[in-house]
Amino acid sequence: MLNYAPDLDRVFQALADPGRRLMVERLSRGPASVSELGRPLDMSLAAVLQHVQVLQACGLIQSSKLGRTRTCSINPAALRSAEGWIADRRTMVERRLDRLGEYLAETADQPDTGSGAEPGEETSETEEHQ
Amino acid sequence: MLNYAPDLDRVFQALADPGRRLMVERLSRGPASVSELGRPLDMSLAAVLQHVQVLQACGLIQSSKLGRTRTCSINPAALRSAEGWIADRRTMVERRLDRLGEYLAETADQPDTGSGAEPGEETSETEEHQ
Repeated sequence: MLNYAPDLDRVFQALADPGRRLMVERLSRGPASVSELGRPLDMSLAAVLQHVQVLQACGLIQSSKLGRTRTCSINPAALRSAEGWIADRRTMVERRLDRLGEYLAETADQPDTGSGAEPGEETSETEEHQ
Repeated sequence: MLNYAPDLDRVFQALADPGRRLMVERLSRGPASVSELGRPLDMSLAAVLQHVQVLQACGLIQSSKLGRTRTCSINPAALRSAEGWIADRRTMVERRLDRLGEYLAETADQPDTGSGAEPGEETSETEEHQ
């Protein structure tokens, strides 16, 4: 069950580093060479290359070599996949909170029924994955 | 320069683990106890608690204890922040690719001018962060 979408592990791992996020930010504005990507970062070219390899391994970027220059470009599909995962969860949370808000607004004027349960919460035990 | 948004480091790091993503998925459907969160995961309660602490430290979830039961709930703000970072980059990439597509469509019927440069690409050197 935990083995689905293994690429999401690597994409989020890649984005967890501020230097790699800066590279993604730079590449979102257009292709760049490895040395261009390393320019704002205080690290060796070898370290920059390692970050490039992490970004490439998870599919966030691709690169091609012409002569001695390796040029990197971004792959929007990997960004979309990570964004989609978060957006789906965030949408679900917000819909649930909206329903809770409506429920509270509806019951605000009604006499107290003695039930403090959040709507839908009572099913959380049965809808749990087995 | 690399020290901005330190929470994004921790949020993406937290989301890089499939077990923690499953917990976020569960909590997006409503609050749950630590033992409920651990039920679909083949790990000790101590390991589940560690994951809960990682999710809490980066602000993705919060928890409160009543008696012997710790109940966790999701914090949509942290999801929004991570989603927003990715969405901003993805939007920039897609706009750039759209402009490139329009440029190619416009120039497809024109005689070859001898320039193979992508529009906007020639400024990539000067717009680089210093």
